[in-house]
Amino acid sequence: MRKIKGLKLNKGMKVSDLVERMGGVGFGARSVSQASVILKKMKSDKDCKIFFGQAGAMVPAGMKGVILDMLDFTDVFVCTGATLTHDLIEALGFNHFFIDSKEGDFDDEDLNKKGLDRMYNVAMPNSVYGKLEDFFEENWEVLKWCKTIKEFLWKIGEICPGTAEDCILKKCYEKKIPLFCPALADSGIGLMIWGRKVAGEEIFIDAFEDMKEIIDISWTAKKRGIIYVGGGVPKNFIQQSLQFSKGAQYGIQITTDRAEPGGSSGASLKEGISWGKMESNADFVDVNCDATIALPLILAGAE
Amino acid sequence: MRKIKGLKLNKGMKVSDLVERMGGVGFGARSVSQASVILKKMKSDKDCKIFFGQAGAMVPAGMKGVILDMLDFTDVFVCTGATLTHDLIEALGFNHFFIDSKEGDFDDEDLNKKGLDRMYNVAMPNSVYGKLEDFFEENWEVLKWCKTIKEFLWKIGEICPGTAEDCILKKCYEKKIPLFCPALADSGIGLMIWGRKVAGEEIFIDAFEDMKEIIDISWTAKKRGIIYVGGGVPKNFIQQSLQFSKGAQYGIQITTDRAEPGGSSGASLKEGISWGKMESNADFVDVNCDATIALPLILAGAE
Amino acid sequence: MRKIKGLKLNKGMKVSDLVERMGGVGFGARSVSQASVILKKMKSDKDCKIFFGQAGAMVPAGMKGVILDMLDFTDVFVCTGATLTHDLIEALGFNHFFIDSKEGDFDDEDLNKKGLDRMYNVAMPNSVYGKLEDFFEENWEVLKWCKTIKEFLWKIGEICPGTAEDCILKKCYEKKIPLFCPALADSGIGLMIWGRKVAGEEIFIDAFEDMKEIIDISWTAKKRGIIYVGGGVPKNFIQQSLQFSKGAQYGIQITTDRAEPGGSSGASLKEGISWGKMESNADFVDVNCDATIALPLILAGAE
Amino acid sequence: MRKIKGLKLNKGMKVSDLVERMGGVGFGARSVSQASVILKKMKSDKDCKIFFGQAGAMVPAGMKGVILDMLDFTDVFVCTGATLTHDLIEALGFNHFFIDSKEGDFDDEDLNKKGLDRMYNVAMPNSVYGKLEDFFEENWEVLKWCKTIKEFLWKIGEICPGTAEDCILKKCYEKKIPLFCPALADSGIGLMIWGRKVAGEEIFIDAFEDMKEIIDISWTAKKRGIIYVGGGVPKNFIQQSLQFSKGAQYGIQITTDRAEPGGSSGASLKEGISWGKMESNADFVDVNCDATIALPLILAGAE
Repeated sequence: MRKIKGLKLNKGMKVSDLVERMGGVGFGARSVSQASVILKKMKSDKDCKIFFGQAGAMVPAGMKGVILDMLDFTDVFVCTGATLTHDLIEALGFNHFFIDSKEGDFDDEDLNKKGLDRMYNVAMPNSVYGKLEDFFEENWEVLKWCKTIKEFLWKIGEICPGTAEDCILKKCYEKKIPLFCPALADSGIGLMIWGRKVAGEEIFIDAFEDMKEIIDISWTAKKRGIIYVGGGVPKNFIQQSLQFSKGAQYGIQITTDRAEPGGSSGASLKEGISWGKMESNADFVDVNCDATIALPLILAGAE
Repeated sequence: MRKIKGLKLNKGMKVSDLVERMGGVGFGARSVSQASVILKKMKSDKDCKIFFGQAGAMVPAGMKGVILDMLDFTDVFVCTGATLTHDLIEALGFNHFFIDSKEGDFDDEDLNKKGLDRMYNVAMPNSVYGKLEDFFEENWEVLKWCKTIKEFLWKIGEICPGTAEDCILKKCYEKKIPLFCPALADSGIGLMIWGRKVAGEEIFIDAFEDMKEIIDISWTAKKRGIIYVGGGVPKNFIQQSLQFSKGAQYGIQITTDRAEPGGSSGASLKEGISWGKMESNADFVDVNCDATIALPLILAGAE
Repeated sequence: MRKIKGLKLNKGMKVSDLVERMGGVGFGARSVSQASVILKKMKSDKDCKIFFGQAGAMVPAGMKGVILDMLDFTDVFVCTGATLTHDLIEALGFNHFFIDSKEGDFDDEDLNKKGLDRMYNVAMPNSVYGKLEDFFEENWEVLKWCKTIKEFLWKIGEICPGTAEDCILKKCYEKKIPLFCPALADSGIGLMIWGRKVAGEEIFIDAFEDMKEIIDISWTAKKRGIIYVGGGVPKNFIQQSLQFSKGAQYGIQITTDRAEPGGSSGASLKEGISWGKMESNADFVDVNCDATIALPLILAGAE
Repeated sequence: MRKIKGLKLNKGMKVSDLVERMGGVGFGARSVSQASVILKKMKSDKDCKIFFGQAGAMVPAGMKGVILDMLDFTDVFVCTGATLTHDLIEALGFNHFFIDSKEGDFDDEDLNKKGLDRMYNVAMPNSVYGKLEDFFEENWEVLKWCKTIKEFLWKIGEICPGTAEDCILKKCYEKKIPLFCPALADSGIGLMIWGRKVAGEEIFIDAFEDMKEIIDISWTAKKRGIIYVGGGVPKNFIQQSLQFSKGAQYGIQITTDRAEPGGSSGASLKEGISWGKMESNADFVDVNCDATIALPLILAGAE
């Protein structure tokens, strides 16, 4: 048995040292440190394809830079339509804002009058929608030929403002990172497509075509590493692709959802062993923490 | 100010009486009782279109009967592909099973050997996939002409075994309840479509076409009532459709997800006021509880 | 393996029937039903001493009636000083009140001005303290001779207004239910004792004397059943007494606290097996639910 | 309104820089950064007395070093008996251990056979109890004269092995930090006192005497700062002492407990405003995070 080493802080300590020392502590700190070690292994294993699934309003919260860093070693990125909409909004010049409050008291009626759409303690100006419409109207001629969601998203990445240093869509396009978003209809970008259709434009994007590619990547990879932030469709879509492989060899999950009510987002990674989505001797850890806190630590710990 | 009345149990008490008395108690009990009152109002308001969004493995858990009861007054049903896959599986004759354990210790390696796919304390035999393949292969000629996800799902409901009393797909088809599932690709049914495509079959289902119908229903309704179980894409897809209306007048949300990490599933209904998805004077309540416990109480309380 | 039976509601259904049928459902519903079955076993097992530990503001929330019902079969009651203070306050004629709000927005500054002390969505008038002082001043001559916390609490129960039907302190005194409250100093009643001491009165209540009795009861019982609502010191104090027995044979825990951060309140009952506080083949269940919802169901299910 | 700045990581980044940058991010990261800023203010405010309340098995988890660092600026320390028992155990030469497992599957029966008492993923050898008994037996002559819990704990700190650098009890004694533990009966140290009493020894420790001192400190302080880790009696005991002051001017709370079920541990700091325990314009923040992750960050950020 290994002794608890305990954590001692030093002045001017580096994040990577803190995360390493967290490995000598129990409870949640240990899971953060383990995740960091597993991430380092994934990254340095040449045979491993890394699948990164991300849900939740990480971009409005200011975590875009961390996601962009993650994309440096991501082989397949699956996220919500919201993430990509927020990313595009920032590429088009908009900002997100803090809504400070004392412990959860937000005046949503007042925010509504001010044209601010709230996501917990963060807000987006509602005026983004007009600008988004302009973008899609102006670029419709090049977008309308896309036949799959991935093709459509890469095309946005090709034509939108911004650089691979500050735009997820741009980086995925330029680095040719397969980008999947099965529920794109459920987002601001989806609304823009609906808007064009209502305006009489035509577009035919197949709802199922992207499945081939993600399943092929999963199937042909020698090893698979999975990283889930927030669960949702991004997690489930990657999990599903693993069912046709021998399962993942590495896994990291960051969520505060509980397992007991039976939803996919809160399900432990271990559950995947029963499905064959996770190898029984895989190296994995569940981190029960807010991703805005845990993800920077894990990433910095694996630098 | 209203006094706390307190709760007193009687022998042989009816569920509806218990839920009513919970209205005299603080904390969570009160929210269950309030949800029940709001549900009663929604149901009896002729001008109100009820949007029911459901995520999480409710069917495997044995909550299909409760969902079927909910559909009696549901005008628009949005759910995950998993719910419909599990529903179809049961229509095809399969059962789900308990995996009893002492507090969360599940032997997933053993379950994997036995061919059982676990969802917390519930399992599905992995052999369902073969049977699902047979169903889709046999019925492909009638399914392949579908152009939207709703059309495809209604068609399954038309041709699958079972009755409106024991099958969600059948009931939605027979009662003509608009049934939306934006992320159908992310489910067993999605896999079957992929399987047919890989086998060389053709099908073109538009990823965005269903948006028109749900937005139109939301837009043209005099009033809107929302019921969310578990969040996810079903919640967000309904919320999105409300943005083009004057917002919902009634709302019930059941989830154990937290608001602080910023995900849509855990966001309070009140947040929707800032977006214009909820009217500022609407009648709504967040129920922080496992839906397998809270939903039967709320429904029985509104009988 | 047992099939999931599923839950079907009937009009006019009894609570006990609902709870029984919840046994045919997975996730949280199942745990409620299991707890009900275990409670029934505990109650009917003549050899079993039932230890009931209760933390959290159940009395202000209106759950006093349910706790009083529980005391009908409780052999040892351990609770927080707050529970007994609130119970005494109600015996002295005060009420608790609802503070309705939309999803957690409470105006605490306004409540402060109105003299209302908030406990989530419930409030107590701050004026209770004056009345409490009167009670302790008037009755000090009989209270000051008490030498243990239990003796002191029973004495309050003897002299306070109210009946065994509406007062926990009175019922414990009249039914001679051993009543332990190790952290009584941490409560309104504790403050009253401090107030008397500051006023120059003398009292000597030993902090450790009650330990003998609870450990003796645990030690001499043929079997032990434990029921924990909310964790805290009441849970831990009972758990500690079990360490000197062969452990509990029955167990029910109701809490929404998580296990991962390592606190006693969120620790699973199973953890007690390692300590010898729970028999390895005991009949126990953790219910992850708000106790104002779960406890009435469990109790009614065991009627 | 302030723009979200966003978080960008650098190689070799210092923890204090990360925590500062978290201030530019929403959701949980922001609360960690705010807590760090508030801690810095508390520490540098000469008029402020800092009350630190700590519950949960932080010492077994390896967080003793961080707690010792916190004591450098703590004016009043309130904790559970467990914390002090674990601290004494380590001073007597014992270690705590990791129990690694895949996601919560712990073999408690096996641990029991090996004589290991589990606290989530950490264990303590059961053999500590024998050694504790020896310590109390050997030192009873000097301990038995103590009349209050604080006096008793300081006395242990005086005579136990270890130094102020590695022992909480020793540091509190040497630095004369008032150390309160109202529920000491509910701990291993409490058991030792019970053991001595059962063995025929006499000791009279008053359960309420320490209240005077903590209330006096709170009452006479010009300003009050509160830091709560894990809630429980330590939080409530400090909160109670604030009721007789003008309330706290600074506040930090770290917990993953929810507010909705109405327990004190999960109650937001803001709730204290209604009670007058928190000034309405105080500087405070609730951090919803595992303390083993959040506390090192907050402390390092305030270095």
